[in-house]
Amino acid sequence: MTDAATHRYFMADAFKEAQKSYDEGGLPIGAVLVEDGHIIARGHNQRVQNGDPTAHGEMDCFRAAGRRPRYDKTTLYTTLSPCMMCAGTIVQFGVKHVVIGEAKNFGGNESFLKDRGVAVTVLDDPACTELMARFIKEKPALWDEDIAGSDSRA
Amino acid sequence: MTDAATHRYFMADAFKEAQKSYDEGGLPIGAVLVEDGHIIARGHNQRVQNGDPTAHGEMDCFRAAGRRPRYDKTTLYTTLSPCMMCAGTIVQFGVKHVVIGEAKNFGGNESFLKDRGVAVTVLDDPACTELMARFIKEKPALWDEDIAGSDSRA
Repeated sequence: MTDAATHRYFMADAFKEAQKSYDEGGLPIGAVLVEDGHIIARGHNQRVQNGDPTAHGEMDCFRAAGRRPRYDKTTLYTTLSPCMMCAGTIVQFGVKHVVIGEAKNFGGNESFLKDRGVAVTVLDDPACTELMARFIKEKPALWDEDIAGSDSRA
Repeated sequence: MTDAATHRYFMADAFKEAQKSYDEGGLPIGAVLVEDGHIIARGHNQRVQNGDPTAHGEMDCFRAAGRRPRYDKTTLYTTLSPCMMCAGTIVQFGVKHVVIGEAKNFGGNESFLKDRGVAVTVLDDPACTELMARFIKEKPALWDEDIAGSDSRA
C-alpha cells in the first residue's frame, strides 16, 4: 500500500473507535497504535463511560497497549488533533509518528510535536471532521469539559 | 500557616502516597490535588500495580479527582518533577500551581510549565529525593521503563 492508503486503512479503525464512543454517549474521539504494520492497541475517549478525565482517546489507547520499554517503532493514529495532555504523552513516550484525522475542530499542538521530533501527518478526513463537529453542536458543555475550556481550533 | 508550612503539610501526604507505592513494589511517586485548602484527590504511580503506563502519580491523582469542568482553583503537589505527559496534562487541565517535592532525580519541564502560566514551586524535599534515589538504584530497568528512556535530571 502507499503511505496514503496505509493511513486511510488505519484511520478507518480509529474512526470506528470514535463512532463506538459516540454511540455510547461519549466523546467521539478514537485512536489506534500501530507497530510493524499491525494494530497493537485501540482506544476511545472514556470521560463519560468511565468518569475518567484523563481517558482521552489517545490515552485510553496507550493504556490498552500496556507496559512496554519503548515506543520508537509505533505510529499513533487519532481521529482528532491531540490536546496538550496527549501531545505531551506522545513526546514523553517517544512515539515517532502521529497521524491525525482532522485538526479543524481542535488543534494547535502540531508544532509542539514537530519541534520535538515527532512526524505529524494531518489527513483532513471528512468523516472524522463531521462526526466531531456534530458532537460539539449536540453537546457543547461536554466538549468544553473535555478540553477544560481550552478551545483551540487550528 | 505560612505558604512554606502549607506546602510541607500537603507534600507530606503526597510522600505518603509515594511510600505506599514503594511498599507495593511500584514506583515511589505520589501526588495530591488541593482545592480551597483541602485535599480533593490522592494518587500514586500504578505502572507495576495496574500495568498502566499512563498512571504516573499525577495522572492517577487526576483520575481519582474525577470529572470536573475546571481546575483553576487547584494546586497539584507531586513528589517528583513532572514528566512531559504530566506537565502537558497540568497545562491542558488549567491547573494554576504545581508544588514539586524534588527535581534532582528527574526534571526539566519546569520552564515548560512556567512559560504556559503555571506557578511552579520546588521544595527540594530530602525525603522525596532520598526515596526516589533509592528506588532508581534498586530498580533501574523499571525506572527507565517509566520514563521511556528520557533520562532527565534537572
